[in-house]
Amino acid sequence: MTTPTETSSYLGKPLDGWRLKLFTIIFEADTRAGRLFDQCLIFAILVSVAVVAMGSVGAVADRVGIWFEVLEWVFTLLFTAEYVARLLCVRHPMRYALSFYGVIDLLALLPTYVALLVPEVSALIDVRVLRLLRVFRVFKLTAYVQEYQALARALAASRRKISVFLSAVLMIVLVMGTLMYVVEGPVNGFTSIPTSVYWAVTTMTTVGFGDITPKTDLGRFIASCMMLLGWGTLAVPTGIVTSEMASLRGAPAPATTRTCHECLTEGHLPEARYCLHCGAHLSPYFRDIP
Amino acid sequence: MTTPTETSSYLGKPLDGWRLKLFTIIFEADTRAGRLFDQCLIFAILVSVAVVAMGSVGAVADRVGIWFEVLEWVFTLLFTAEYVARLLCVRHPMRYALSFYGVIDLLALLPTYVALLVPEVSALIDVRVLRLLRVFRVFKLTAYVQEYQALARALAASRRKISVFLSAVLMIVLVMGTLMYVVEGPVNGFTSIPTSVYWAVTTMTTVGFGDITPKTDLGRFIASCMMLLGWGTLAVPTGIVTSEMASLRGAPAPATTRTCHECLTEGHLPEARYCLHCGAHLSPYFRDIP
Amino acid sequence: MTTPTETSSYLGKPLDGWRLKLFTIIFEADTRAGRLFDQCLIFAILVSVAVVAMGSVGAVADRVGIWFEVLEWVFTLLFTAEYVARLLCVRHPMRYALSFYGVIDLLALLPTYVALLVPEVSALIDVRVLRLLRVFRVFKLTAYVQEYQALARALAASRRKISVFLSAVLMIVLVMGTLMYVVEGPVNGFTSIPTSVYWAVTTMTTVGFGDITPKTDLGRFIASCMMLLGWGTLAVPTGIVTSEMASLRGAPAPATTRTCHECLTEGHLPEARYCLHCGAHLSPYFRDIP
Amino acid sequence: MTTPTETSSYLGKPLDGWRLKLFTIIFEADTRAGRLFDQCLIFAILVSVAVVAMGSVGAVADRVGIWFEVLEWVFTLLFTAEYVARLLCVRHPMRYALSFYGVIDLLALLPTYVALLVPEVSALIDVRVLRLLRVFRVFKLTAYVQEYQALARALAASRRKISVFLSAVLMIVLVMGTLMYVVEGPVNGFTSIPTSVYWAVTTMTTVGFGDITPKTDLGRFIASCMMLLGWGTLAVPTGIVTSEMASLRGAPAPATTRTCHECLTEGHLPEARYCLHCGAHLSPYFRDIP
Repeated sequence: MTTPTETSSYLGKPLDGWRLKLFTIIFEADTRAGRLFDQCLIFAILVSVAVVAMGSVGAVADRVGIWFEVLEWVFTLLFTAEYVARLLCVRHPMRYALSFYGVIDLLALLPTYVALLVPEVSALIDVRVLRLLRVFRVFKLTAYVQEYQALARALAASRRKISVFLSAVLMIVLVMGTLMYVVEGPVNGFTSIPTSVYWAVTTMTTVGFGDITPKTDLGRFIASCMMLLGWGTLAVPTGIVTSEMASLRGAPAPATTRTCHECLTEGHLPEARYCLHCGAHLSPYFRDIP
Repeated sequence: MTTPTETSSYLGKPLDGWRLKLFTIIFEADTRAGRLFDQCLIFAILVSVAVVAMGSVGAVADRVGIWFEVLEWVFTLLFTAEYVARLLCVRHPMRYALSFYGVIDLLALLPTYVALLVPEVSALIDVRVLRLLRVFRVFKLTAYVQEYQALARALAASRRKISVFLSAVLMIVLVMGTLMYVVEGPVNGFTSIPTSVYWAVTTMTTVGFGDITPKTDLGRFIASCMMLLGWGTLAVPTGIVTSEMASLRGAPAPATTRTCHECLTEGHLPEARYCLHCGAHLSPYFRDIP
Repeated sequence: MTTPTETSSYLGKPLDGWRLKLFTIIFEADTRAGRLFDQCLIFAILVSVAVVAMGSVGAVADRVGIWFEVLEWVFTLLFTAEYVARLLCVRHPMRYALSFYGVIDLLALLPTYVALLVPEVSALIDVRVLRLLRVFRVFKLTAYVQEYQALARALAASRRKISVFLSAVLMIVLVMGTLMYVVEGPVNGFTSIPTSVYWAVTTMTTVGFGDITPKTDLGRFIASCMMLLGWGTLAVPTGIVTSEMASLRGAPAPATTRTCHECLTEGHLPEARYCLHCGAHLSPYFRDIP
Repeated sequence: MTTPTETSSYLGKPLDGWRLKLFTIIFEADTRAGRLFDQCLIFAILVSVAVVAMGSVGAVADRVGIWFEVLEWVFTLLFTAEYVARLLCVRHPMRYALSFYGVIDLLALLPTYVALLVPEVSALIDVRVLRLLRVFRVFKLTAYVQEYQALARALAASRRKISVFLSAVLMIVLVMGTLMYVVEGPVNGFTSIPTSVYWAVTTMTTVGFGDITPKTDLGRFIASCMMLLGWGTLAVPTGIVTSEMASLRGAPAPATTRTCHECLTEGHLPEARYCLHCGAHLSPYFRDIP
C-alpha cells in the first residue's frame, strides 16, 4: 500500500499541511478531533477484543461464527489503515515502528494475517487488548495518570529490592521443589523436577491448585513448613510496595499529549518550544479551549 | 393499601402530630422508642434471613418447610407495613422511595411477591440482608461509625488508583487468559477465551480452585510466572489501602440520627436549625436524656 | 482428693510457710525453682500433645497404642496433681478456678476423664496445647513478651474497625452466596444457601478449595468479580494491622512474674508493696540474683 | 588428593606467593580475575542445576540421559577441584570448611558421590543451587546488596515478633486441626491429627489445595471461621515486615569483597589495616582501578 518511494519522499521533512493535521489528530489528544479519534479507537479495540473472545465460545461460534469472522476482518483492515496513517504522518516512520506503541500496534495486526497460514494463532488476535494502554493517553489530561505514574515510580523505585527478592524466591522454590521430588517421587504426581518446582511456586504463592498434592506424612510436613515460610516471604513484596507508596506521594503529571515530531516523546508543556528529550524544535501547539 | 388520594393530601406538607412522631421513631434513633424500633427491625431482619437460608437446606425444608413459608410471609407483611409507614410519614414519599435505603427496602420485599409468579427467585429474599446496613444507624451514636467512615473515606480517596489498577489487572488477565487458551487448548480444560480469563483471574488472585489447571510444561511455566507476577501485582491494593489508612486518622463522626424532613439527610447537630444539605427548616429535636 | 474441709480452713488466710513457697514456685517464674517448674511443665505439655497426636495415626496406634494410653494417663494424673496444688496454694481457689488460666487448666484435664464415658472426645485432649500459653510466662522476663503485648494492643486498638469490617464481609458473603445459589443451583454443587455461603467465604479469602466450583458462564463471571472484590476487601485487615503496628511501638513490658495473692494479677515491680489492680498488700518478693 | 601432610605444612602460616594470589581470585571479587572467576562459577552452577532438572524429565532423560550424566560428573569434578583450591589457599582450612559457605560448597558435592551408593539421592544434586547465594558477592560492589541487607536487617529486627507470631499460629493450627479431626473424622478424609493439622495449615495460609475438604455442615462452618481468622492472623506478618521496612531505610553497604585471611569476614574497607571482626592484620588490598 505505501510503497517505499511514496513515503520516502516525506522522510525527515518537517510536518506541515495535512501531515501536521493528521499527526495532531492521531498522536495527540488535546484537540476535539484528537480526543474523538482516540475514543473511537478505544471503542473499536474493545469491540474487537469482545468479538475474538466470544468467537472462541463453541456455542456462539456455531451460530454466528461467520459474522464474527467478517467483523474481525473489518477491524483488522481498519487497524491496518490506522497503522499506515501513523507511519505516513510521522517524520521518521522507523522510529515509530520500533517504539513501544509501534510494536504493539503491529503485534495487534499480525495474528489475523498469520492466521491465514497457521489457523491456530487466530486467538492471539486478543493481544490487541494491549493497545488499550492508549486509554491512559486519553485520560492523560485528567488526574488518573498522576496515580498511574505514582504506581510506575513505586515499582521502578523498588526494582532492585524486587530483583533480590525474586532471585531468593526462585532459589527457595528450586530447592524445595527438588526436595519434594525426592520425598514424594513420581508415584505421587511429582513426575519431574520442573513439575515439582511448578508445585512449589503454586504453594509458595498460596494459589494451591490442588492438581498435585503431597501424599506422604513427610511430604505434608515439608509442605506445611513451605506454606508458613511462603507467607512470611510473600509479605515482603507487599512491604516493599507499601513503603514505597507511602514515600511517593503525588508529583505533578504532564499536562498535555503534545508529541515531539522527531522522537515521539509526549507531554510537552503548552509553552514549550523545544523537545525536552531530543532538543528538536516543536511545531506550534493546537489545543481546543476547554 | 395506600391509595394515591390518601397519601397525596399529605404530600409536601410539614410533618406534625402522629406523622412527626412516627418519623422520629422510624427514621431517627435518638429517642428510646426510635432505638427500640431499630433494634426490633434488625432482629426481625436477622431472623428472616436465617429462615430463608435454613429453608434452602433440603433436610430442614422437608421437615418444617411449611412453617418456614408461613414465617416468611409474616416477615414480608411486616416489612411491607413498615415500608408503607415510611412512605406515609415522610414529606416527599418519592424522594424516600428513590433514596439508597428506599431502594433496598423495596428490593427486600419484591422477591416474595415475585416468587408467587416465578418460584425460582424465592432465594433472592436474602437480599433482605442488605437492610442490615441500617445496623450502622443504631450504632451511629457510638464510635463504630467513625471507623466505618474512615474506611469509606480511605476507599473513596484511592478510587482513582483503584480504577487504574483494576484496568491494568483486566488487561493482564485478558492477555494471559488468551495466551493460555492458545497454549493449553480445549483438550486441557481451557475450552474458550472467557473460561481461560476466568482461570487467569482465579490464578492471579491466588484463589486457585483447581477445577482447570495447566497440563503442558509450557503452560505450567507460564502459570508459574503469572502467580509470581500476580503476587507482585496484588501487593498494590494492599499498599494503596495501607498508605491511605495511615494518612486518614479519625475525623469526628456525626453525633445524631436527626433526619431532615425534606431531603432525608442524617446527622444534624442537636442545636442545628436548618438542614446543612438543602437548607430546609428543621423541626424541633427529640432526644432522650441519656 | 482435696475435701472441702481440708481446703476451706485455708481459704482467705494470708499465704505463709509451704503455701507461700509453693505459690512462688508454681505461679511465679523469677526464682530458679519457679523457672525449672515452668520449663518441666512446658516440656510435659509438649510431650503429652505429641502423644495424643501420634496416637491418632492408625499405623502408630496399632503398634504402640497401649503405651500411648498409659503415657496419656500418667500425664493426666500429673496435670491433675498440679491443678490441685494450684488450688491448694492460692488464697481464693474459686478465683483461680474461674480465671483464664484456671479454666484452660481444667479443660486440659476433663477430656481424658470424660473419654471414659464418651470415647469419641478423647482427641480433644489436644486442647491441652492451649496450656502452652504459659510459655509466654517463662519468657516474661525476656523481651519476647514486649512484642507479644504490642500485637495484643494492636489487635485491641483495631477492635472496632475489625467488627465493622467483619460485618461488612459477612453481608457481602451472604448476598453473594445467595446469588450463586440462584445462578448455579443444586445441580452444580451449590446444594443450599449455607453451602453457597461457605463457598463464598472460601473464594473471598482466596483459599479456594475447589470442592465446589461454578460451572456456568454467568457463575464464573460473578465468581471472577468476587475474587477481585475479595482481594480489595481483604487488603483492609492488612491495612488496619499495619497502620496500628506502625503507630504502636514498644512500651516497656512488666519486668517480673510476681503474682498478687488476692487477685492473681501478674507483673508487679520488685519494689511494689501493694497490688496495682486490687490494692492488696503484697508479700515480700523472692527472686534469685540472676 | 590433598593429603594431610601436604596441606598441614601451610596451616596457620600467613598467605603469600601463589596462595595469596589464589585467595584474592577465589575469595574476593574486586580484581578483574576475581570477578571473572565468580562469573564463570555462577554460570557453571546455573548450567549444572539446569542439567539435573532436565535430567529428571522422563522424555528428555530417555533421549540424552547419558550426556547429562557425563556433564554432571564434569561439573562435580570441577566443583571438587574448586573446593580443594579453597581449602588450600585459606590459612585455616577447618574454619572455612565449617563456615556457612564452606558447608554449602560441600553439600553441593556430596550427593553425586553418595549417589554412586544410593541412587535415589541423585536429585539432591540440585542443592547446588544454594551456591548461587554467592551471586550476591559478585554484585556486592553494586547497590543490590544494600537492598539485600535491608531485607536481612528487617527480618532480623522482627525476629522476636515472628517467633511469638509463629508459636501462636502453631497453637491455633494444632487446636483447630484436632477440632476438625473430631468433627469430620477419618470418613471425610481427616484420617489423623497430623493430617488434620496439615489441612489446617493449608487453610489458614489461604493455600487451599482441596485434597481434603470438610463435608459436614458443622465442619464447613468451623472452616469458614478459620479462613476469616486466618486472614486476620496472616495480616500480622505483612504488618511486621511493612513497618520494619518503613523504619529501616538505606544504611550504607560494605564497599568491597576484601576477605580476612584469619576469620573469612568480608567487606573490609580499602584503607582498613586490621580485621574489624577478629583484629588480625590484613594483607595489602588488591583492586583494579574501575
